[in-house]
Amino acid sequence: MSEIVPVWIAVDWGTSNLRAWAMGPEGVLAKVSSDEGMGKLSRDGFEPALLRLIGPWLGGRPPVLACGMVGSRQGWCEAPYRTVPCTPLDRNAVVMAPVTDARLKVAIAPGLKQTSPADVMRGEETQIAGALRLMPGYDGVFCLPGTHSKWVHISAGEVVSFQTFMTGEMFALLSEASVLRHGMQGEGWDDAAFDAAVSDALSKPEKLGARLFSLRAEGLIAGLSPQAARARLSGLLIGTELAAAKPYWLGQRVTLIGAEKLSSAYARALAAQGIEAQRLNATDCTLAGLASLSPMTEAAR
Amino acid sequence: MSEIVPVWIAVDWGTSNLRAWAMGPEGVLAKVSSDEGMGKLSRDGFEPALLRLIGPWLGGRPPVLACGMVGSRQGWCEAPYRTVPCTPLDRNAVVMAPVTDARLKVAIAPGLKQTSPADVMRGEETQIAGALRLMPGYDGVFCLPGTHSKWVHISAGEVVSFQTFMTGEMFALLSEASVLRHGMQGEGWDDAAFDAAVSDALSKPEKLGARLFSLRAEGLIAGLSPQAARARLSGLLIGTELAAAKPYWLGQRVTLIGAEKLSSAYARALAAQGIEAQRLNATDCTLAGLASLSPMTEAAR
Repeated sequence: MSEIVPVWIAVDWGTSNLRAWAMGPEGVLAKVSSDEGMGKLSRDGFEPALLRLIGPWLGGRPPVLACGMVGSRQGWCEAPYRTVPCTPLDRNAVVMAPVTDARLKVAIAPGLKQTSPADVMRGEETQIAGALRLMPGYDGVFCLPGTHSKWVHISAGEVVSFQTFMTGEMFALLSEASVLRHGMQGEGWDDAAFDAAVSDALSKPEKLGARLFSLRAEGLIAGLSPQAARARLSGLLIGTELAAAKPYWLGQRVTLIGAEKLSSAYARALAAQGIEAQRLNATDCTLAGLASLSPMTEAAR
Repeated sequence: MSEIVPVWIAVDWGTSNLRAWAMGPEGVLAKVSSDEGMGKLSRDGFEPALLRLIGPWLGGRPPVLACGMVGSRQGWCEAPYRTVPCTPLDRNAVVMAPVTDARLKVAIAPGLKQTSPADVMRGEETQIAGALRLMPGYDGVFCLPGTHSKWVHISAGEVVSFQTFMTGEMFALLSEASVLRHGMQGEGWDDAAFDAAVSDALSKPEKLGARLFSLRAEGLIAGLSPQAARARLSGLLIGTELAAAKPYWLGQRVTLIGAEKLSSAYARALAAQGIEAQRLNATDCTLAGLASLSPMTEAAR
């Protein structure tokens, strides 16, 4: 196996996971990951965790560009939020992490905050910056579905406003930790149940609280299948999000940035409302965004 | 310590807890409880768990009257749901649990189900029956706040319809297991934050999804206190429940049956909407309901 000599190293360091890419002149040379997310590490645990993962790539002392919760107050070192409206990333605002290994030079991208309504993001700003490089001149809305979905209004290259929904986390909690878990084992899916639930939630979002327990009750007394229950829970939560996010998507150009399966669900729900959303791969966006942080790495693209 | 010789024994056996009362001619003689709820027991574990708790009371072979999840399909033995509209309890519908100890005679009360919209209850039907004994001739609505809050429409001594909300479980999941937990440590409370959140959720229930993450964001960038965050989460969830349950309480006579602190929060939220709810103690209702299950125990009241 030949040695990997990256030009630079991209790092996406979230609460639960750490992912790193060795980047060459033509793109990704190698990819590694671990579960040493920010949530598991104390302040002095970040450098060792990173070295365990990318140590073999450091011979040529390539710069490391990182985004995500690694820059939070509980992270490696705080990269203070920038305030919208502003560009998603500013290479002059990166913070250098304190290191002991002389081969390491780690720049951390700051997140964004919005004063009113109060909101924050860390990591998504890098995907947004990358999406703007992949779609130059884009004006419209990005939707980044995930644990904490973000809707982001973009104009003239700046993030104008954004809003976060806990939809993904709610789905995980309700389907895995609540009484509803009994009726939705497995990974099955039911498109019709999803579609009906999205429509129901969009037209009567105030009924969400009343709809949830009926998933359990129908499982007990009306034979609701686990796959229909799962899809309906997802549809109810996504539909409720779409109802509250309507000012973001109604009559707008919308692009989804996220994992394949989840983005498909959002695209399907939006299509039913007459919105044909474009799609971008989240990792492509993260890498393009991190690359934009340095004149050197940007040139290497 | 003198021996306890109950006339009968009341048992409230839920998913998480088992509680039993030694009942004499004048009321409660003694109370015991354990954490051997239905959720922790296999089918043959129920009789031993009960004997561990009430064995010393069985000298006179008093009848045991039980309600709750003990009668579910995963319980000691299934007491099939009765279908509303119907009286909350019917002593002819109790199911006798299979026992090996000759001193034991255990009757289990069935729960209620509603076909459309699908809904179920187990345990609350007994509280409702008890409430109707404590307030003879009651016509109106009962609200039973809790892990799974129930709104129940009562007319002419029957349960006409009911609806379940997962408000209490959502509060527990969001405040203890979601990203919001970071901003709401402790038991503090803030009445003004609760009131404002109830009002906000009642007027814009479709915005719940958008309001939740702002609790985290305001904690990070606007100094929201843990007690205000806690109270606001509670207010948002209770307000959303009240918005969806409006057909139950608007212009109706409402009585709350539940734990002191939680009932107070619901009473406060309803009062802001012009509804002066009456209050009943949940245990009083459970005991009165169980007593109504037997002509003998009923006479002993």
